[in-house]
Amino acid sequence: MILTVTPNVALDITYQVDRLLPGSSQRVRVVEERAGGKGVNVARVLHALGHDTMVLGFVGGAAAAAITADLARAGLAQELIAVEGPTRRSVAVVDAGDGEATLFNEPGPPVPAASWGRLETLLAARLPDAEALVVAGSLPPGADGDACARMVRLAAAGRVPVLVDTAGEALVRAAAAGADILKPNAGELLASTGRAGIAAGAAELRRRGAKAVVASLGTDGMTAFTPDGSWRAAPPARVAGNPTGAGDAAAAALVAGAVAGTPWPDRLRDAVALSAAAVAQPAAGGFDPALYRRFAHQVLVEGAACP
Amino acid sequence: MILTVTPNVALDITYQVDRLLPGSSQRVRVVEERAGGKGVNVARVLHALGHDTMVLGFVGGAAAAAITADLARAGLAQELIAVEGPTRRSVAVVDAGDGEATLFNEPGPPVPAASWGRLETLLAARLPDAEALVVAGSLPPGADGDACARMVRLAAAGRVPVLVDTAGEALVRAAAAGADILKPNAGELLASTGRAGIAAGAAELRRRGAKAVVASLGTDGMTAFTPDGSWRAAPPARVAGNPTGAGDAAAAALVAGAVAGTPWPDRLRDAVALSAAAVAQPAAGGFDPALYRRFAHQVLVEGAACP
Repeated sequence: MILTVTPNVALDITYQVDRLLPGSSQRVRVVEERAGGKGVNVARVLHALGHDTMVLGFVGGAAAAAITADLARAGLAQELIAVEGPTRRSVAVVDAGDGEATLFNEPGPPVPAASWGRLETLLAARLPDAEALVVAGSLPPGADGDACARMVRLAAAGRVPVLVDTAGEALVRAAAAGADILKPNAGELLASTGRAGIAAGAAELRRRGAKAVVASLGTDGMTAFTPDGSWRAAPPARVAGNPTGAGDAAAAALVAGAVAGTPWPDRLRDAVALSAAAVAQPAAGGFDPALYRRFAHQVLVEGAACP
Repeated sequence: MILTVTPNVALDITYQVDRLLPGSSQRVRVVEERAGGKGVNVARVLHALGHDTMVLGFVGGAAAAAITADLARAGLAQELIAVEGPTRRSVAVVDAGDGEATLFNEPGPPVPAASWGRLETLLAARLPDAEALVVAGSLPPGADGDACARMVRLAAAGRVPVLVDTAGEALVRAAAAGADILKPNAGELLASTGRAGIAAGAAELRRRGAKAVVASLGTDGMTAFTPDGSWRAAPPARVAGNPTGAGDAAAAALVAGAVAGTPWPDRLRDAVALSAAAVAQPAAGGFDPALYRRFAHQVLVEGAACP
């Protein structure tokens, strides 16, 4: 089983409107709701790939029932800790004219220290049965910057490989705690480390203690800096669609590769193929299986193993 | 007590963002939620004016708890009928730069015939203690066009004056059922009657059975066609602010005038003053009391009583 922690779960709401005109009042034609947040999206992809998963995180307020119901509908096992504040909503307004999406992200509720304690107790209880741990997404407002790092240390103590996809201080501290894989996007990597280049930023996180750093480069693919060597991979063709969730598909592929012990160049190829296949699918957490199979043979990986 | 029916209650959500940029992802700085829908806004204004009110309507889904809690917080008595579908949300995104609001209105849940029956039973039980009935706002999707008219007939049978603020077929049928006051805005009046002018549209609704028709003309004020004569009133100055809820403040003034038996020119003056004072206040259902008092003496009413 692969555990996925989403520190700031969301209810993802999609509104379809005829035309988004700022300053006007518009009728929403279609309303869709689903459980979201990076860790939840990773769990969806892993589930679709045939892995057992368990969704962990915090939920509260009016959105809680919709989130737990949607996870159950998706067949995802969940252990969510109830908090008092309302779980954030993320509203995506999709213009039917040009297909363009405009997102409004609520901040989410502060999570009290006692609830973080409950999550860590739960994690400690589940880690002995886990093949891997994923901690993905932003932290709730006011969260202690060490929250991700504590989860990394718990996993390390249990010899469970852990992938962290977050940003800022939480990313840097997860590195120092010895995370096996960090998967920021390029912008997050530069902002979190204060370095001017991807390689320098990744080197800084590895110097602090991270074993591998994989940065996503948007449509240019991904680049990995690992104990075995450094590689870069790009999709064979540009895919039109919704890039939300592409990074989560990559994280799913990377953690699945870590569980299987796949060599790094193959993990990276798989991550880029799955990520591109996720862009071709409208909702975060989904991917186009035919495109994934095709791209999995076509992604070019360049780089070098360590001597 | 004044009963207010809101056939399609809403949870009004306000998002403050730094800048609304279509196609981008933006952080919501402040989230506010309150119970909304025209009938709810009318009840808020009546309550602030010192009237006892009772909010009636349908609620369901995740927003129900937030709506009942907000009404309780506002001190508004409520008898809301639970329905299965989720109560609609109305999301107003306010740009901190220019203060401009962009609204996204969900359609709301269909209301089954049995729930309409429960509402009518409830109304029949409450009307003997009521001074007036207000039915305000759109009907839920799929609603039978006679739903407002049936409420008008119930009130008429109990000799309770009834004001209806709606549009389309429901407005025309409410006229035929003999509504005491119809208060559409100018656009709704023209669209509902298919007439080219306000006076012609109002005459059509009165010919069908409505006793008085008051059309709101936005910043130009209001015009009333009544059994006692026809009058037009305009605010003494243009007020900057949020026009959402201005029509509901006018409806509150008109129904309060009907209860008090105020002469029509004074009712119209009061409605225009309260409506302008509502524009000066950010949230629908509120008004600026000082501006209301000042404007109540300054609104100019022109017109003529019937000979």
